[in-house]
Amino acid sequence: MRARLDELARVIGGELVGAPSLEVTHIAPPATAGPDAIGFVAQARYAAQIAGSRAGCLIVAPALREAAVARGAAIVCADPYLAHARLSQWWAARSRPPVAAGVHPSAVVEPAADIAPSASVGPLAHVGAGARIAAGAVIGALVHVGPGASVGEGTRLHPRAVLATGCRIGARGILHSGAVVGADGFGFAPDAGRWEKIEQLNAMWIGNDVEIGANSCVDRGALDDTVLEDGVKIDNLVQIAHNVHVGAHTVFAGCVGVAGSTRIGRRCMIGGAASIAGHIEIADDVQITACTLVSRSIRQPGRYSGAFPFDDNASWEKNAATLRNLHALRERVRALEKNR
Amino acid sequence: MRARLDELARVIGGELVGAPSLEVTHIAPPATAGPDAIGFVAQARYAAQIAGSRAGCLIVAPALREAAVARGAAIVCADPYLAHARLSQWWAARSRPPVAAGVHPSAVVEPAADIAPSASVGPLAHVGAGARIAAGAVIGALVHVGPGASVGEGTRLHPRAVLATGCRIGARGILHSGAVVGADGFGFAPDAGRWEKIEQLNAMWIGNDVEIGANSCVDRGALDDTVLEDGVKIDNLVQIAHNVHVGAHTVFAGCVGVAGSTRIGRRCMIGGAASIAGHIEIADDVQITACTLVSRSIRQPGRYSGAFPFDDNASWEKNAATLRNLHALRERVRALEKNR
Amino acid sequence: MRARLDELARVIGGELVGAPSLEVTHIAPPATAGPDAIGFVAQARYAAQIAGSRAGCLIVAPALREAAVARGAAIVCADPYLAHARLSQWWAARSRPPVAAGVHPSAVVEPAADIAPSASVGPLAHVGAGARIAAGAVIGALVHVGPGASVGEGTRLHPRAVLATGCRIGARGILHSGAVVGADGFGFAPDAGRWEKIEQLNAMWIGNDVEIGANSCVDRGALDDTVLEDGVKIDNLVQIAHNVHVGAHTVFAGCVGVAGSTRIGRRCMIGGAASIAGHIEIADDVQITACTLVSRSIRQPGRYSGAFPFDDNASWEKNAATLRNLHALRERVRALEKNR
Repeated sequence: MRARLDELARVIGGELVGAPSLEVTHIAPPATAGPDAIGFVAQARYAAQIAGSRAGCLIVAPALREAAVARGAAIVCADPYLAHARLSQWWAARSRPPVAAGVHPSAVVEPAADIAPSASVGPLAHVGAGARIAAGAVIGALVHVGPGASVGEGTRLHPRAVLATGCRIGARGILHSGAVVGADGFGFAPDAGRWEKIEQLNAMWIGNDVEIGANSCVDRGALDDTVLEDGVKIDNLVQIAHNVHVGAHTVFAGCVGVAGSTRIGRRCMIGGAASIAGHIEIADDVQITACTLVSRSIRQPGRYSGAFPFDDNASWEKNAATLRNLHALRERVRALEKNR
Repeated sequence: MRARLDELARVIGGELVGAPSLEVTHIAPPATAGPDAIGFVAQARYAAQIAGSRAGCLIVAPALREAAVARGAAIVCADPYLAHARLSQWWAARSRPPVAAGVHPSAVVEPAADIAPSASVGPLAHVGAGARIAAGAVIGALVHVGPGASVGEGTRLHPRAVLATGCRIGARGILHSGAVVGADGFGFAPDAGRWEKIEQLNAMWIGNDVEIGANSCVDRGALDDTVLEDGVKIDNLVQIAHNVHVGAHTVFAGCVGVAGSTRIGRRCMIGGAASIAGHIEIADDVQITACTLVSRSIRQPGRYSGAFPFDDNASWEKNAATLRNLHALRERVRALEKNR
Repeated sequence: MRARLDELARVIGGELVGAPSLEVTHIAPPATAGPDAIGFVAQARYAAQIAGSRAGCLIVAPALREAAVARGAAIVCADPYLAHARLSQWWAARSRPPVAAGVHPSAVVEPAADIAPSASVGPLAHVGAGARIAAGAVIGALVHVGPGASVGEGTRLHPRAVLATGCRIGARGILHSGAVVGADGFGFAPDAGRWEKIEQLNAMWIGNDVEIGANSCVDRGALDDTVLEDGVKIDNLVQIAHNVHVGAHTVFAGCVGVAGSTRIGRRCMIGGAASIAGHIEIADDVQITACTLVSRSIRQPGRYSGAFPFDDNASWEKNAATLRNLHALRERVRALEKNR
């Protein structure tokens, strides 16, 4: 694929400084980009990358205009990072082969499934009875869409995703490969030393523009639906338990776990490998840093942390050993204070 | 589906107070249930939910009988939570469409696989040579059952589960979507800076009534079988390594990891995202709280913990920085004590 | 399968002490092995296992020769653990049924895919347009190989693995069941409270002899390829984010997460459930112990740790509560020192 700079400036909504007819063939980081590539420098602190870059064109903010222009073509715009996102979408739409509408002959579609003519059902996919696949949706190879499940307009289920019985996902969503939406929540009642299963009778409601990463799991509800509001983004290997409610535009980095019935607000950012306890509430606009266990409700917006600071093993061992007696150390300090 | 209260009281084994012919259409939480729903209040501390509930019927313990009856119909029984579990099973059995016995024409069944007539093999499933599928077992869509593997009576493998070569699961088990039972354990011998694979020659033995969550992994053994005894319950995204032995009725919450050759006792409860080191032993009736790393054997029943307490980021940073010099702080306290 | 000891000694490259014609039928741990099994004792600290073992033959290091011979046949070699690895490979190659070359009739192979005659494509597998499957490669049941992807000689994709569009894996590699190689990296640009997707336009380069565990994920690159060099070994449920570069022969235990654009050196060993932050560098020969969050670059080889030491719950609670005020405790010690 080749694209002219004037066309790219139009896509991005920026001002082109340089030859409109210059063409690039791909997007690349400024450091490794050659004359046939376009790159971006998102922040002033990366300004040092500009002078040495051999990129055919750089997308920069107004503050870096001069530096960028001094070395070659540039597209100047208010938010280069957002511009890059938009450019990447435009590029992907033009460079990836289009998906053919229709049901692949090897797919198995059960009776009374309702598949829009413009939707695509890939090789060896299985669509259960009464499922609905809306216009422009793409069901990839080896995907399972359960009975009565519903896939919104333009939503893509990548190869080998699962959307289980009765679960609904809105428009423009993405389930990546291996994602399992709607498996049973983990519920058991103790009965004389063994466990009696609580059947998970409800399902899942997922809004529009939701993305769920590879091999992530979002469980169906027991008595209420599990809910992901619009714009929620979930990375790989994340576990969202039953009856959880996630507010709009909240994002989860990889390997996060959220236990059951917890309510997370809007626009939260949950760092990698964080764990969130069950039956708690987290306010809007909360940021949790990586590897933090959130063990109780958070009522105020802000940034919360709880990871052990790592160190060389010998130092860690000494500090960890002391930590095991930290309470006693405090008592000793108290004693010293009393006897002062 | 509709059900009369006298029938539900019989299912639960409780005493109905109210109109036997009253009907409900679903189970719901007391707070959101309407007159067409039945709910339960498991514990006295939730008694406040009773007065305001519009549920057609509430399942309660004897201590809450009066409060429940004051507002409408009730079923009184010794253990409402267990009653709810039983009711949910009864409800699921009646409201879910039955699974048709037989092999779907799109499934691939290799020679010499032994499939009971009452078992079901779903669309696009693959059953390897010599595998055995017992009576009433359900092999879901896109499932892989490896050569020589064995699935017990009434056990269900949900869409896209894997039971690998030679692995055996007993009766009434459940593998959820994406679960992988019997992949190779992680074993390598160092050889001059590279790694030589140790082939994992054994398999897996899983007892009765075992449930394994979505996208969880239980590895095959190297020289012995990996073992999950009866009644073990495993949530989503859990990793159980090779040669691990888990005692009966032990439960694992989501995102737990257990390293190789560890032996875990009976009736243990392992909290979410906990990690258990390899080659250790954990006694019966041990509870591990969330995010704890169990780095050595535990010989006594009880509750064990090891998570960093989370805080607002600024407070955490100050405490974490101090923690990095905790050993030195102890030395300073020692010096103060000496010079007292 | 049966094997004579003289043949096994040849395979291992060790010295047989005992009857060359003695036969064994399997490999077993010394403690449980009977006369029909061969076992190994890798280290002098396990010497106590020797006297009581009923194994038909033991593989031991020269230092344990006398003890081993005193009880029966032995094969003496420099590195019994490595010998065991080699023996397990030899055993697996002879005892496992061979995989038939060719494409199973139920597999779906898209136009212009290039499949070597000696390769195997299993039941219900899907091979995308233009994909290349090299000689001796094994594509298991229900596997998805994306358009333009490439599988090297002898590489095995176990049932239900995914190698996504354009991703390349070298020779003698293994993807275990459920592994997803080449899903989108997690990239979004903020735009007025919502998230704009950054399309992940690059792919993945995986060297030779790389093994990736069950349900693990390695994401495709955004602007550069994600890279795993030769000999990298990844256990189950590991997440490697986009643009990460992993040096040769580095190993990752289960449940590890590595965030985007991080560069990890050669021969590193990353312990279970460790987390590695994004955009950092880790030197060669670094060992990270279990559950450690590596939050900044590591420039020196060595061993690094950062897990909270676990304890009984009551002790942990007291220490954790004190930890929440650790900075204040340090201030109190300071005050004591000043007033001394």
